[in-house]
Amino acid sequence: MTNTDSSSALGNQAASTSLTSLSRNSGESLIEQIVRMVTARIEDKVWRSGTRMPSIRRFSEQYKVSRFTVVEAYDRLVASGLLESRRGSGFYVRERTPIVPPSASTHAPAPRQLDVVWLVRNMFRQMPAQKMPGAGSLPNEWLDSDLVANALRAVARQNHNLLQYGEPQGFLPLRQQLQLKLDELEIAATPDQIVTTSGVTQALDLVARHLVRPGDTVFVDDPAWFLMFGSFAMLGANVIGIPRLPDGPDIARLAEMAALHRPKLFVINSLLHNPTSTSLSAAKAFQVLKLAEQYDFTIVEDDIYCDMHPGPAVQPATRIATLDQLQRVIYLGGFSKTLAASLRVGFIAAAPETARHLADRKMLTTLTTTEMTERVAYRILSEGHYRKHVDRLRGRLDAVRDRTVRQLERIGLRVSSHPPAGMFLWTDLGCDANTLTARAMEEGFLLAPGSLFSPSQLPSTHMRFNIAAMADPGILRFLEREIGRS
Amino acid sequence: MTNTDSSSALGNQAASTSLTSLSRNSGESLIEQIVRMVTARIEDKVWRSGTRMPSIRRFSEQYKVSRFTVVEAYDRLVASGLLESRRGSGFYVRERTPIVPPSASTHAPAPRQLDVVWLVRNMFRQMPAQKMPGAGSLPNEWLDSDLVANALRAVARQNHNLLQYGEPQGFLPLRQQLQLKLDELEIAATPDQIVTTSGVTQALDLVARHLVRPGDTVFVDDPAWFLMFGSFAMLGANVIGIPRLPDGPDIARLAEMAALHRPKLFVINSLLHNPTSTSLSAAKAFQVLKLAEQYDFTIVEDDIYCDMHPGPAVQPATRIATLDQLQRVIYLGGFSKTLAASLRVGFIAAAPETARHLADRKMLTTLTTTEMTERVAYRILSEGHYRKHVDRLRGRLDAVRDRTVRQLERIGLRVSSHPPAGMFLWTDLGCDANTLTARAMEEGFLLAPGSLFSPSQLPSTHMRFNIAAMADPGILRFLEREIGRS
Repeated sequence: MTNTDSSSALGNQAASTSLTSLSRNSGESLIEQIVRMVTARIEDKVWRSGTRMPSIRRFSEQYKVSRFTVVEAYDRLVASGLLESRRGSGFYVRERTPIVPPSASTHAPAPRQLDVVWLVRNMFRQMPAQKMPGAGSLPNEWLDSDLVANALRAVARQNHNLLQYGEPQGFLPLRQQLQLKLDELEIAATPDQIVTTSGVTQALDLVARHLVRPGDTVFVDDPAWFLMFGSFAMLGANVIGIPRLPDGPDIARLAEMAALHRPKLFVINSLLHNPTSTSLSAAKAFQVLKLAEQYDFTIVEDDIYCDMHPGPAVQPATRIATLDQLQRVIYLGGFSKTLAASLRVGFIAAAPETARHLADRKMLTTLTTTEMTERVAYRILSEGHYRKHVDRLRGRLDAVRDRTVRQLERIGLRVSSHPPAGMFLWTDLGCDANTLTARAMEEGFLLAPGSLFSPSQLPSTHMRFNIAAMADPGILRFLEREIGRS
Repeated sequence: MTNTDSSSALGNQAASTSLTSLSRNSGESLIEQIVRMVTARIEDKVWRSGTRMPSIRRFSEQYKVSRFTVVEAYDRLVASGLLESRRGSGFYVRERTPIVPPSASTHAPAPRQLDVVWLVRNMFRQMPAQKMPGAGSLPNEWLDSDLVANALRAVARQNHNLLQYGEPQGFLPLRQQLQLKLDELEIAATPDQIVTTSGVTQALDLVARHLVRPGDTVFVDDPAWFLMFGSFAMLGANVIGIPRLPDGPDIARLAEMAALHRPKLFVINSLLHNPTSTSLSAAKAFQVLKLAEQYDFTIVEDDIYCDMHPGPAVQPATRIATLDQLQRVIYLGGFSKTLAASLRVGFIAAAPETARHLADRKMLTTLTTTEMTERVAYRILSEGHYRKHVDRLRGRLDAVRDRTVRQLERIGLRVSSHPPAGMFLWTDLGCDANTLTARAMEEGFLLAPGSLFSPSQLPSTHMRFNIAAMADPGILRFLEREIGRS
């Protein structure tokens, strides 16, 4: 230990305070400078564990800084685990547990067999958005971070009720806004019939836990959003896919399977279906509802892409909940796709009795959702900024959709449906999509192969592309080379 | 419809803009003034549905405000459902769906039979804290709302990555802080072994769903935190209470029941047990762990009151996870009690393989927790303010505990254990606590009767009091009167 200046009077175990002198004009606060310099001394092992730090008084005198500054800096060093405070004796360099970075195991290369959990884990890798044409959400630069940050600042300034649990059913003013939103879709629901959730994912989990018992059958579209297959499997449900045609489910097949399996639920994206971006025709909406009545199953209508839909002039826009008025339909929505996934604000609208059960179940599962982020969503909705933002989003999607279709077709992919709206294209590669996905991962691209979207998980030649995440020309070059080869 | 000023030129269906003139010095923005005045006109039915609003240009000219101001005000009115925009034709007063306040049914008077869900629902009523001696959390004024609001503002200012899902396992810097926190308890865990959750409630739900199947047995303390009884019941588990003595579980009974029922889990508060505020002796910690090994069950150590514990000099402070090093123990913690319940920041620390399974399960259930609030918790922990805050909290609790014990004893309650720490007193009323709770509710006080804390839900003479929520002298008068009568 070097021990060269006047503070050596502190004794053998004392830290020398031979810090570079502090600057008041560096742009860095004095506290930050002290923290940085002490950290460097400890990390370079100049000051070893057990070394006593100068007292607050001595430090403050020697460096001509206030005692408050030293206390604050020492506190941060204690919090970061570098120093410890021994009662009545002062501050010491701590016996350290190195902060170990998480092992790479969760981001491992593709296993021989692709699975849902593996793909979903990869969806959350900290990869640049343009490397993720398989992603299910829009890149950051498509969203409006100022809108969210401003609302968050406003909520922080309000400074009230940021501490308590809030209501298990969700922040009431937000539920009132959602009532208005549903009213525009001609779905009548009082705030009592609305339960906020941590995204549509929790909404679906709550509904499934309420209605599905092990061994029960759940119908889903085939293809469909893959995460829920894992979620239903966890509940011991038997998951059966109903083929999705361009105008909705294959009705003959739905009738046949319903008679055979007597499902508890049918989960469906009526509008902008993931992964095909097609929407249900009004006639099919009616037929699905009739079958649900005949075979007594609940329809869970996941309308997460609601605000990306341009309206009935462009693509059919009939929600089953609008026909049924939440008798037999449980309607799910949220803001993860259009506002910010990190808000985790989704919701359920259901019949009063069902909503009450779901609110109780939510309470037993997570007590409440975060009122802070529900206040953020409320602010953005109530101030009218949300409408303009989603108008812009739709415009931007329209501006890239046709070009992306042409680019993919030029290199030999078939775009199975060329929808006039939404963020996804569902394509046919003409070769196995799993193999291509594994090769793409080696080159740093995340793709979403068709096998994942089917409850059968069978190999598939389909691939879902996110048209907002195709800006990197490398992905087209990769596809051209690989598809040419196969 | 009165139609008295120059804008009557707009025609019969047009709204008169006879608004009180706008003020630039009122402290209220021009936008807010317009919104308020238009809202009043519509709510008073001066302007009826279908009425056309003045065009943006005309409004801006007449009131000498910028078009931007009018656009912004109209947008807010559209968002709040009062106006609608008809493409190419302007803004109209909308056919209205009245906002119906939620029915009072969720806050109904006590049912003849008290139940967990009923009490928990009442816990979330918007009642003044001093009316809730039965509450499980500290009143707002005991917490530090500036600390939370400042951290939230700082996170909003950072303005980065507020949009995406974040990592399913939780915000990495927070997990690194938690590693340090656990290290101080001599529990070694890498960030890979830590999964953040939406409070301890979700932590417990994830663990139970991972390890418990319908028909399995789960042991809990008796008495214990009641919410989990409902949570386990939802999973079809058989919940059995192990009597809690002042130094920990009744070991002979635990051994006997373990041999008989072969439980999957034993959920325990080792420190500051809810509701008694007692802590496990080191010897009992060891005995519980030995029995867990012998009968091969997992110990779920819920340490939510960790930071209210004053250290081993005052009360025993042995965590089973410290003895076991997360082999057989799953450790739960969080900040709902000490920082802010609304953050919904809790965590699980477990063996690496278990943590990986729990992270996957969390992903299938809610995808991610809110990175925003995890950043808030991270900031407060890493800047060292948290330590001082919990020091103050403990001091305040110490300042009211003995006085509250004396007050309760004076009116004839027996304080079953008089613990030197924590926020709860577990008392014996000498009369049925359910009856007293129902009477208290009629007078506007929320109590927490002993029957709720037992998985048997049998009538009990015990009552839990929150010493931070006894400031209203009315509660002591009520107790004195009622207990004197019984």
